[in-house]
Amino acid sequence: MTVPPFPTIPLLHAAYADGLDPRAVVAEAYRRLAAVDDPGIFLALVPEAEARDAAAALPPFDPAAMPLWGVPFAVKDNIDVAGLPTTAACPDFAHTPAETAPAVARLRAAGAILIGKTNLDQFATGLVGLRTPYPAPRNAIDPAYVPGGSSSGSAVAVAHGIVSFALGTDTAGSGRVPAALNNVVGLKPSLGAVSSRGMLPACRTLDTLSVFAGTVADADAAFRVMLGFDGADPWSRALPVPPAPAALPPGLRLGLPDAASLRFCGDGLSEAAFAAAAADLEGLAGAAVPVDLAPMFAVAALLYDGPWVAERYAAIRSVMETHPDILHPTTRAVIAAAERYSAADAFAGLYRLAALRRSADAIWDRVDVLAVPTYPRPQTCAALAADPIGPNSELGTYTNFVNLLDWCALAVPGRPRADGFPAGITLLAPRGSDGLLAALGARLHAASGPAAAGPDAIELAVVGAHLSGLPLNRELAGCGARFLRAVPTARDYRLYALPGGPPQRPGLLRVGAGEGAAIETEVWALSPAAFGRFVAAIPAPLGIGTLRLADSTAPKGFLVEPAGLDGAAEITRFGGWRAYLADRAAA
Amino acid sequence: MTVPPFPTIPLLHAAYADGLDPRAVVAEAYRRLAAVDDPGIFLALVPEAEARDAAAALPPFDPAAMPLWGVPFAVKDNIDVAGLPTTAACPDFAHTPAETAPAVARLRAAGAILIGKTNLDQFATGLVGLRTPYPAPRNAIDPAYVPGGSSSGSAVAVAHGIVSFALGTDTAGSGRVPAALNNVVGLKPSLGAVSSRGMLPACRTLDTLSVFAGTVADADAAFRVMLGFDGADPWSRALPVPPAPAALPPGLRLGLPDAASLRFCGDGLSEAAFAAAAADLEGLAGAAVPVDLAPMFAVAALLYDGPWVAERYAAIRSVMETHPDILHPTTRAVIAAAERYSAADAFAGLYRLAALRRSADAIWDRVDVLAVPTYPRPQTCAALAADPIGPNSELGTYTNFVNLLDWCALAVPGRPRADGFPAGITLLAPRGSDGLLAALGARLHAASGPAAAGPDAIELAVVGAHLSGLPLNRELAGCGARFLRAVPTARDYRLYALPGGPPQRPGLLRVGAGEGAAIETEVWALSPAAFGRFVAAIPAPLGIGTLRLADSTAPKGFLVEPAGLDGAAEITRFGGWRAYLADRAAA
Repeated sequence: MTVPPFPTIPLLHAAYADGLDPRAVVAEAYRRLAAVDDPGIFLALVPEAEARDAAAALPPFDPAAMPLWGVPFAVKDNIDVAGLPTTAACPDFAHTPAETAPAVARLRAAGAILIGKTNLDQFATGLVGLRTPYPAPRNAIDPAYVPGGSSSGSAVAVAHGIVSFALGTDTAGSGRVPAALNNVVGLKPSLGAVSSRGMLPACRTLDTLSVFAGTVADADAAFRVMLGFDGADPWSRALPVPPAPAALPPGLRLGLPDAASLRFCGDGLSEAAFAAAAADLEGLAGAAVPVDLAPMFAVAALLYDGPWVAERYAAIRSVMETHPDILHPTTRAVIAAAERYSAADAFAGLYRLAALRRSADAIWDRVDVLAVPTYPRPQTCAALAADPIGPNSELGTYTNFVNLLDWCALAVPGRPRADGFPAGITLLAPRGSDGLLAALGARLHAASGPAAAGPDAIELAVVGAHLSGLPLNRELAGCGARFLRAVPTARDYRLYALPGGPPQRPGLLRVGAGEGAAIETEVWALSPAAFGRFVAAIPAPLGIGTLRLADSTAPKGFLVEPAGLDGAAEITRFGGWRAYLADRAAA
Repeated sequence: MTVPPFPTIPLLHAAYADGLDPRAVVAEAYRRLAAVDDPGIFLALVPEAEARDAAAALPPFDPAAMPLWGVPFAVKDNIDVAGLPTTAACPDFAHTPAETAPAVARLRAAGAILIGKTNLDQFATGLVGLRTPYPAPRNAIDPAYVPGGSSSGSAVAVAHGIVSFALGTDTAGSGRVPAALNNVVGLKPSLGAVSSRGMLPACRTLDTLSVFAGTVADADAAFRVMLGFDGADPWSRALPVPPAPAALPPGLRLGLPDAASLRFCGDGLSEAAFAAAAADLEGLAGAAVPVDLAPMFAVAALLYDGPWVAERYAAIRSVMETHPDILHPTTRAVIAAAERYSAADAFAGLYRLAALRRSADAIWDRVDVLAVPTYPRPQTCAALAADPIGPNSELGTYTNFVNLLDWCALAVPGRPRADGFPAGITLLAPRGSDGLLAALGARLHAASGPAAAGPDAIELAVVGAHLSGLPLNRELAGCGARFLRAVPTARDYRLYALPGGPPQRPGLLRVGAGEGAAIETEVWALSPAAFGRFVAAIPAPLGIGTLRLADSTAPKGFLVEPAGLDGAAEITRFGGWRAYLADRAAA
């Protein structure tokens, strides 16, 4: 019996019900970590034998009693676990706490098995994941991009399937930006819903623990285990947080940013991906109400150019005043800005926030959920090397205002960009609406994300009207397919424009090795059932075979029967269906 | 038809129903102000003709439609009224606003008639009422004492019966301390319950409008007119504030400070008065739970020695930075302390408050209402001349923590001190419980305050077992009598110890002018009905006549029939019944 490629809680629990030994799951987590070979993900590991012993010590499998039975997880290294050092990515600040954060203790009591503590932007100050004196985690999708922060290691660990979920923290987007950059779910709870004891503060008035997971359901399951008032935590609130409703509430009102509010910093790929994700959402919740984000951006500006940085200063005051040299230079520079703000400035900032909250919260009279991009565009490591501040700020465009406004958030992978890199979408709602976001987010993710394809997904290369942006692409979204990559074929194919339509269709024909050309494809992942239904619906002369792609993979893909090429025009020279259509449109 | 001596709303409305012209009420307000001859109460008056015209312009009397029809009121001069200058007691800061504060506008729309703007501690910074460049208002009970602040003029205007109610503001006790010092009711609403637009901020996160009135019912009536969410005020909250219940909730849990928490700074008179008021409360609500005030005092210390003073700085930043010379020297010194606090200090203060709130709020698991003294002891003008800071701080002992904790408060006159000066008691409860406080406060006031005696009260001088602290004193409290003053008789009386008892009783006999001695009395006010029942119950040889007191007043008072002096011992030489008892006890 094998461990599922992506260890979602339902898949693990199904395997446990069939007799899988949780020690095998633990062993697989460490094996995968070794295979990923990224020394930047974890700052401290639970010794494998110890984690295996924890698995062996579990009572008999009973997921009703222990909803996280045998589920491996990781914890961001600004959260205390007794016996493991808490570094906050500042080695000279490290201390080994005697007590485990109550939220972590609850996860363990529910049967979850801790694997280790993950890397972060030092003192949780940053959205890039590179502000660490340790090796930075590599982005799990494309190492040219930043992993995102500050909860970098937690997001990457989940993305690689090393753990089922991981705890992060979120003050200004640290639980959402890395989720999007690594194509996983990031749940940012309502402030005060989860105890923050044992969490090193960044901005105490704005901080919360957060959850990264492969699916919304898993993130929500971990959140529900941690949820609860903690009288010993001054920031805890006895919030009513109703669970996710089984069905979306009838008449749910969806908001989307109006055209003037959308900022992609010139990145058309991200813009198109968000448009596609927004269309998915409208398919689920009906036509959206356009929302002006100007008040939200004004709130975000407060966080960046206002006195809240003094909270970060207050959190590490003794370090700033006696050992600033132990800090990462960027972290030090960012936090030192606090020194120019007086107490009167701090209160003036609170006043300005109170006024802006009024106008921002007015949207909840018109909508129940507001969806925004998770970031305007992904950032590369190269961009951050050139400027460690600017691109970091840009990543927070749609996240900075949320905690100041006391809203909850759920970042889910939306439609990927046409180049295959993930583009996230974040759902926002007033505090206490975490359950509503989970209900909508799970459906949105199913429409566009890995949850739809599942661990036994089948790869399908499309070459024609199913390509992103073309008329039949919606069929893929409709069956829960997930975009994986855009890769041309090996140079063994010819492409034809078939007669008939609409829609117009191409036919791809394999010829002798090297006797054809590299033809554009997109590879998508479908669940077996969706794939089966998809194939069953393909009309002749098209069919499904196995393609050879330039990246040496061999997914299933569209082919044409030679018998169907009567009246077809060869268009191999265009290199792909899109280029051919563009040429015709220009003619 | 005459205006009631104390113009409570029900008395005014009864008179209006009988045909009283509201212009007569307006004229009487200005006449009383002139008679009081205190130039410190008002900083600006509505011209009398204008106020009279406002009264004349009222629609026909209909108190259901206009609950404040024809009710004269005043407004503290840090609240805007269009057309009148707002000075905040800083002449060089004066400006004449174009808009009236919405709360004031609501009062006028309900029929109330504005008389003028009242004096205050400059920028509402102080609890004494002396920090003003204008003449300070005189304490309405005894001008040797401070009037209390910062809402000094409003409290004094109500105490003199010039207006039925007056608006103050309350940040750290400004709506409670002057109420107690002038023997009137001070209602400090839950923060955000009343719009604060048009109010000059002191500490915006802690400020609220407040109401002074002669009775709890009147204060509550004005509060209910103003109550309501104001979307244009960032500090407004849509709080549920249920009205005062008709009956006290069964099982109401009362809290009183435990012995270690009570601070009277050595003032036995205040201590005894509070004990008597507390006993009244227990009579109404059952035995109290002792409450440790240590967390509350820690919160109060934060306000004094923490960064909140920076809110005052932020409120008048341009003055502090460009024209500090226009400020009262004490005000300037107090607010300048803000300059030593950084933004990090401000946030650290907020963190400390959040932690302390947790322990302070824990009391609400055990009690529904907490009663505390309004101040440890009253302060004299002489004490403030010697030290403008220390006695001011002391006055805030039981008030400073309340707004930081987001509680509501109702200050009512409790039992007076034995020397006749008022000693206040303040009821506290969590935000939104204003109605519960009104229900309990009205009953407490009826048991000890002027509401019981009413405007047609009859003065009664007692000389024996009815004196404060002696066995029959409870009979006076039991019939709603109110202590007025302790004054000896003219030197025309002899005092005898009558045979019989217990209780032992004296007999007072008038002799020839100058042929007797000055004998200790206490003058109390009783309603006609209570007086009648009281007199009816007096056994021979005692009766009620008219006394001549040293202050030239001639109240009704206890006398003895000469025929009852058989077997009695003359004790005139002791000067009073208490001294005689003390002498016997020592023997």
